[in-house]
Amino acid sequence: MSILRLSDTDRAYLAGFLDADGSIYVRAKPNPTYRFGYQIAPAIVFFQSAKARESFEKMCKLMPFGSLRERKDGVCEYIIQRLSDLEEMIRLVEPFVRLKKRQLILLKKILDAKKREQNQITFTKLLELVDQFRELNYSKKRIRRILPVETER
Amino acid sequence: MSILRLSDTDRAYLAGFLDADGSIYVRAKPNPTYRFGYQIAPAIVFFQSAKARESFEKMCKLMPFGSLRERKDGVCEYIIQRLSDLEEMIRLVEPFVRLKKRQLILLKKILDAKKREQNQITFTKLLELVDQFRELNYSKKRIRRILPVETER
Repeated sequence: MSILRLSDTDRAYLAGFLDADGSIYVRAKPNPTYRFGYQIAPAIVFFQSAKARESFEKMCKLMPFGSLRERKDGVCEYIIQRLSDLEEMIRLVEPFVRLKKRQLILLKKILDAKKREQNQITFTKLLELVDQFRELNYSKKRIRRILPVETER
Repeated sequence: MSILRLSDTDRAYLAGFLDADGSIYVRAKPNPTYRFGYQIAPAIVFFQSAKARESFEKMCKLMPFGSLRERKDGVCEYIIQRLSDLEEMIRLVEPFVRLKKRQLILLKKILDAKKREQNQITFTKLLELVDQFRELNYSKKRIRRILPVETER
């Protein structure tokens, strides 16, 4: 895990950027190769018009653990997905975030839960936490999930 | 003019917010009641989804000189337009802005020019500065303006 030594003003700047045009979310992607049928995929994303790509790219280098991609609609996304990087990112912006405080706290909870040994019950609880993101992020879609029946191990 | 005593991290936060989802622009609005036929209207605007209105409003109180309005498309705009407030805003974010540095410098130039006594020549130059915003802000519209003929004063 990389510990970044950023100044407090750099950290606050990133928090402001994330609040304004960023996203914090966790997806439960159906995937039969996973024990409980879902891959839990958390992310912190920064967005910006591709027109400002050059200075956006420079800014992203403050947190050298994400990956940049340019979407077809002219939006650049800088996405951070690795667990240790997400934890580091949370540590950096948490004291300064204002609009997305609840998302950060929920993401932390999920990362903590994800680290622990899972069973059907704890995994169902983990999925419930993931679903709380829909409300925080104003997603209207509601999802009903059924976990695969697990044979005795 | 209000001098705000914000911490450096608050200032950096606002700069990050402005870079991500803000706008700096100057418009030359045709207006026959003005001596040279145009009103020069500068602005710094912060945007956010109305869904996050409550915490956005709280954040806006860091700079208590703008006005908040909710557009019909569900976007909140916090707009700062008074000259002295714009100058104060520039002072606050300038050291921390990364993506909109050139816009800030151009806005400063225009505010300085606006304060000076104008004649046809200096006002034409001022309009040229205003037009430079179109390029910085990636506006595609090109405008040709003709100043009203001024009688000897």
